[in-house]
Amino acid sequence: MSYSFGKNFKVTLFGQSHSKGIGILIEGISAGYKINRDLIAKNLDRRRPGKNKFSTARCELDDFQIISGEVDGITCGAPLAFVIENKDQRSSDYENLKDNPRPSHADYPAYVKYGGFNDIRGGGQFSGRMTAPIVIAGSIAEDLLLNRGIKIFSRIKSIGSIKDVEINLNNIDEEVFYDLKNQEIPVFDEHTREKMGSEILKAKEREDSIGGIVETFILNMPAGIGEPFFDSVESVISHAVFSIPGVKGIEFGSGFEAAKMTGSSHNDEYYYDDGKVKTKTNNHGGVIGGLTTSMPIIFRTAIKPTSSIGKTQYTISLKNKTREKLNIHGRHDPSIVPRALVAIEMISAIAILDLVMEGER
Amino acid sequence: MSYSFGKNFKVTLFGQSHSKGIGILIEGISAGYKINRDLIAKNLDRRRPGKNKFSTARCELDDFQIISGEVDGITCGAPLAFVIENKDQRSSDYENLKDNPRPSHADYPAYVKYGGFNDIRGGGQFSGRMTAPIVIAGSIAEDLLLNRGIKIFSRIKSIGSIKDVEINLNNIDEEVFYDLKNQEIPVFDEHTREKMGSEILKAKEREDSIGGIVETFILNMPAGIGEPFFDSVESVISHAVFSIPGVKGIEFGSGFEAAKMTGSSHNDEYYYDDGKVKTKTNNHGGVIGGLTTSMPIIFRTAIKPTSSIGKTQYTISLKNKTREKLNIHGRHDPSIVPRALVAIEMISAIAILDLVMEGER
Amino acid sequence: MSYSFGKNFKVTLFGQSHSKGIGILIEGISAGYKINRDLIAKNLDRRRPGKNKFSTARCELDDFQIISGEVDGITCGAPLAFVIENKDQRSSDYENLKDNPRPSHADYPAYVKYGGFNDIRGGGQFSGRMTAPIVIAGSIAEDLLLNRGIKIFSRIKSIGSIKDVEINLNNIDEEVFYDLKNQEIPVFDEHTREKMGSEILKAKEREDSIGGIVETFILNMPAGIGEPFFDSVESVISHAVFSIPGVKGIEFGSGFEAAKMTGSSHNDEYYYDDGKVKTKTNNHGGVIGGLTTSMPIIFRTAIKPTSSIGKTQYTISLKNKTREKLNIHGRHDPSIVPRALVAIEMISAIAILDLVMEGER
Amino acid sequence: MSYSFGKNFKVTLFGQSHSKGIGILIEGISAGYKINRDLIAKNLDRRRPGKNKFSTARCELDDFQIISGEVDGITCGAPLAFVIENKDQRSSDYENLKDNPRPSHADYPAYVKYGGFNDIRGGGQFSGRMTAPIVIAGSIAEDLLLNRGIKIFSRIKSIGSIKDVEINLNNIDEEVFYDLKNQEIPVFDEHTREKMGSEILKAKEREDSIGGIVETFILNMPAGIGEPFFDSVESVISHAVFSIPGVKGIEFGSGFEAAKMTGSSHNDEYYYDDGKVKTKTNNHGGVIGGLTTSMPIIFRTAIKPTSSIGKTQYTISLKNKTREKLNIHGRHDPSIVPRALVAIEMISAIAILDLVMEGER
Repeated sequence: MSYSFGKNFKVTLFGQSHSKGIGILIEGISAGYKINRDLIAKNLDRRRPGKNKFSTARCELDDFQIISGEVDGITCGAPLAFVIENKDQRSSDYENLKDNPRPSHADYPAYVKYGGFNDIRGGGQFSGRMTAPIVIAGSIAEDLLLNRGIKIFSRIKSIGSIKDVEINLNNIDEEVFYDLKNQEIPVFDEHTREKMGSEILKAKEREDSIGGIVETFILNMPAGIGEPFFDSVESVISHAVFSIPGVKGIEFGSGFEAAKMTGSSHNDEYYYDDGKVKTKTNNHGGVIGGLTTSMPIIFRTAIKPTSSIGKTQYTISLKNKTREKLNIHGRHDPSIVPRALVAIEMISAIAILDLVMEGER
Repeated sequence: MSYSFGKNFKVTLFGQSHSKGIGILIEGISAGYKINRDLIAKNLDRRRPGKNKFSTARCELDDFQIISGEVDGITCGAPLAFVIENKDQRSSDYENLKDNPRPSHADYPAYVKYGGFNDIRGGGQFSGRMTAPIVIAGSIAEDLLLNRGIKIFSRIKSIGSIKDVEINLNNIDEEVFYDLKNQEIPVFDEHTREKMGSEILKAKEREDSIGGIVETFILNMPAGIGEPFFDSVESVISHAVFSIPGVKGIEFGSGFEAAKMTGSSHNDEYYYDDGKVKTKTNNHGGVIGGLTTSMPIIFRTAIKPTSSIGKTQYTISLKNKTREKLNIHGRHDPSIVPRALVAIEMISAIAILDLVMEGER
Repeated sequence: MSYSFGKNFKVTLFGQSHSKGIGILIEGISAGYKINRDLIAKNLDRRRPGKNKFSTARCELDDFQIISGEVDGITCGAPLAFVIENKDQRSSDYENLKDNPRPSHADYPAYVKYGGFNDIRGGGQFSGRMTAPIVIAGSIAEDLLLNRGIKIFSRIKSIGSIKDVEINLNNIDEEVFYDLKNQEIPVFDEHTREKMGSEILKAKEREDSIGGIVETFILNMPAGIGEPFFDSVESVISHAVFSIPGVKGIEFGSGFEAAKMTGSSHNDEYYYDDGKVKTKTNNHGGVIGGLTTSMPIIFRTAIKPTSSIGKTQYTISLKNKTREKLNIHGRHDPSIVPRALVAIEMISAIAILDLVMEGER
Repeated sequence: MSYSFGKNFKVTLFGQSHSKGIGILIEGISAGYKINRDLIAKNLDRRRPGKNKFSTARCELDDFQIISGEVDGITCGAPLAFVIENKDQRSSDYENLKDNPRPSHADYPAYVKYGGFNDIRGGGQFSGRMTAPIVIAGSIAEDLLLNRGIKIFSRIKSIGSIKDVEINLNNIDEEVFYDLKNQEIPVFDEHTREKMGSEILKAKEREDSIGGIVETFILNMPAGIGEPFFDSVESVISHAVFSIPGVKGIEFGSGFEAAKMTGSSHNDEYYYDDGKVKTKTNNHGGVIGGLTTSMPIIFRTAIKPTSSIGKTQYTISLKNKTREKLNIHGRHDPSIVPRALVAIEMISAIAILDLVMEGER
């Protein structure tokens, strides 16, 4: 039933792709915080479709209104309510989908869940468009984390078979991290960027789509954040990240590689670095026993190829119980990875802030 | 902060490895349910250490008491409270750990979180022993799911580099699934079982440990269970599974492979099978848009190698800020994978039952 | 922190008196419910100020928009989001209040809580205006209860020293109850209505205000709803009712009279009436041990006199720490009792529906 | 469904009158707190039955065990679990109640709610005995409040028609308050104490029972605690207090008297007292707009006469649908007011601490 996430920094999502508006409520921000509209605008812009050749031509203006919670841009202690009006919607594109559920879309299970009353237009409440309000709330979370010195960055680790370079976090300038936020295809290596671009365009030309992996880094986390068992840092982050449409897997630190390793090679040795406790390696990915160690939190998220493709597919008619040819018109991203990256980063910011605030109590 | 999980079938965990007892509270069971003590006993037995050469020689009797919630074995509507008394604890084994945090254990972050007041004995509230009460609650969840025809099985997909065979779910007798629950090393292929056994013993001989992957199957799920966004089926299951100590990653259906795939090969085509909606492939792993499709839920969990190893390691002295040699005595599993499998299966039962009950409202 | 109420029928309130809008989110309504706009309009109208001589001349049009959660007036399973735009606000009326907290208003404690950043305009998030969205959600709850045959009515039991007649529920036609919903001053006795009207106008002439008691009846409740201890029916209703500004006390059934009674006179004897279990008296007010008995739930709510009065008062200057004369301009109800009655009825509908839905699980 | 209360200081109650044990879990206490066993023992002693002629002769030893959450009496950050073993139970006393629901007891609605599977022995999960674990948790809350300088006291305001004197809080030594905690019948006036004692004994002689009113004072509350609307201080306290069996009403400050008052007489004027903001009167009872003002919180709770009386009563046979004579044997308090006072005080401590901790975030 719940469209809410978080205990201390609590967000509640509402809207459908083609309802009057979509939005998000935020509870838990102290009165007196100056809303960072620039950061919200910047992150919305990173997520926005139609801004380049790698993404759909749909134009979502994402102009948001603040309905409540502030006076002259400063929070007043009441819940912050953001609403984005829905415009530029072509509802007719989706008419035939009522009977013919699209493969890999929520159409069929939603039809069962809601007894046929779900809003089919544009994917309804399952639409990727719902990540826009998440980006708004995530931007505020990112800003409140920045005030504490905590930073979140992400890169595309791979698109199809194209992989970005392996990196050593210790050798990277913060500049390089910040630059990721300005790139259409955020990777560390220039050549990889080009190759990934061609890979996406190749999928587009074939009226097909392509998946990829996003890697997220959370820097400057204090130690001792998180809880044993049910509210482990990994539990809370994975809960958040699997909310984002298209996510198929998540791994922390060594991740699935750990399954092949021995304890003696996997255990990260502690040492003192200038008085601070660190580990020589970071197979643990910044979290042990559900708690942060102060080492960077590193996790990777697998994203499936966009479900909507131009290629002819087959599905069923729910009415006639027959096989049906399906041609999906409309405009779609050949790869959702670059935009999913922003949604993952932003929802992680929400999850991390919630954990950090819990630790500050 | 929260030691609770679930909304409809809600469990609350308490205890430390060496406290007077450990236990779990269960809320949300209707009055009139006959507690299946046999299933609890069987699953506790599967999880129990010391029963074979692959696991630690520690002996946890896991005799549980039902403090409240029932009359003559039938629930009465009050919370069910289970307590396992703690015996056979060698507290002295852990004396030197106060100053020397063990690599890959929660010792150091717990020290920071609790200001040094955490219970260091046996890992305190971070102990793998805490999964025993989870197995109790999970057994009840499994029983309540069985009453609805829903079944959960798991196998070891790999130990180190040894992999079990690929399978086609459609070709497997239910017998074969059930047999997994009787095996010390639950795999589909006999030869793999032997090889995995040797792999674990090899690690043991070297006073080292080895990781692995667990694969879990949830059969006969109705369609339309789960919620869009924050309470997606994957969100809820991953939240639960990352509670289990040692988990490094989780993936559903195609998982990380999806990142390399195109939409046209990844999309699962719907068809009617004897009047029931199914998909020809199951890359989606039983969940689309956060909702079940009625296809089997399939997920894989990466488990790290046991953190406690006999081999000499190095760590720090928190007091002296020096490097220290560390020899961990006591008894430890050369691989936690076989026992973690039970904990993962049981906590998944809790998560799934909670989702199913939400869907029945 | 929480602006939410309810577990099964969950509402989340947002807005301030003079923010861009105020609104409410509703989660937990099944897809396929036809929103009863007429009932919403009727209840908003009952609550609306400025409609007669007993209430403030302010004009709140209370036109609401449904931002999400429906398609063509039918719920689709996504959260229902209602927004009322704020118009006709005279912000300047409140300028001087920043320094001079009004007696019996939240100004001073809100100033402390929010460090001076609270929205002082029109009472901010403490405004009685926030009950308008509660009436919207309450109307939907009332409609969903009516579908189950459960009805909620309220009358004014007293205004100042004027009391309505004692009644015997068994002798009252349902017609009479329904008529309460059409009255500006809902009482059972015509003469009382007139006397109460004069009492209110007398207070108005003196630029003063007057308190009163509201009595609420919930009919046709099934037995066995509620929980022992923390979620007793009285706990949940009182929690809800004390949310309404101006409430000073609540009592169920015999209420404070019970303190003077003996067990032999207070205990309600069970009997069978046409096969149904009833009690001869209803001192228990429809609830025993936190659970409903199927007898009518009856409770009375004490409402304080309106805090804003025209008469000159004294307060402090927070800046100068001096005593200050205070003249409150603007438009205010001489008695909030008639409008608070609607808010109490509506929030009770929310609480009752939540309890009933819990019982249906 | 929920047996939990509180967000920051969260308690979860379990047990039935005749189950193996009863107990309470506490989450939210920082590691490093030394458990005040003396205060727990003292408060349990105040609540204990059988200690004088005003209460039942049952003997509940209330020896509690701490199952988890501490090491050597100091909290370690894990949930604190308390269990009281159930002894001295005469289950046979309750045999005949299965078919004949006792008036004013939860027997009948519980029978409906749990389909006949509820634990009828000693009132099961509805038993007043369940307030013993509440007293344990409340004592810890009281101790944590005392560490903040916040104090809670209660007196009996009336028993039947016997009333204690009116008091002026400003004129009372703290000594006098503390003395309330040592009295069997805690009142301010000696003569009243005697008269109340006779009133209770008179009821006892007649095999009847008598009700009363408890008045609770919370001193030294900081201003600005609580939330607008759903988590108003009154909402949270009343929610808690109505959990206690036998409570029929609650009022804050002027309470039901407010209904007869005018705004000009009810509004409490602010003034500066030695640099601190106070009000000249305290009709608001320490709370305005749901928030504390720093004035004492004062509330009164109406308690019904004990439901179990020796006098012959009549009820129904659920089996035969006939009228039946009912004689309740066993041992019962002629007035639960003195013991309910302790439960009210203790659950208020829990509610207040939870609110205060929320304010400290």
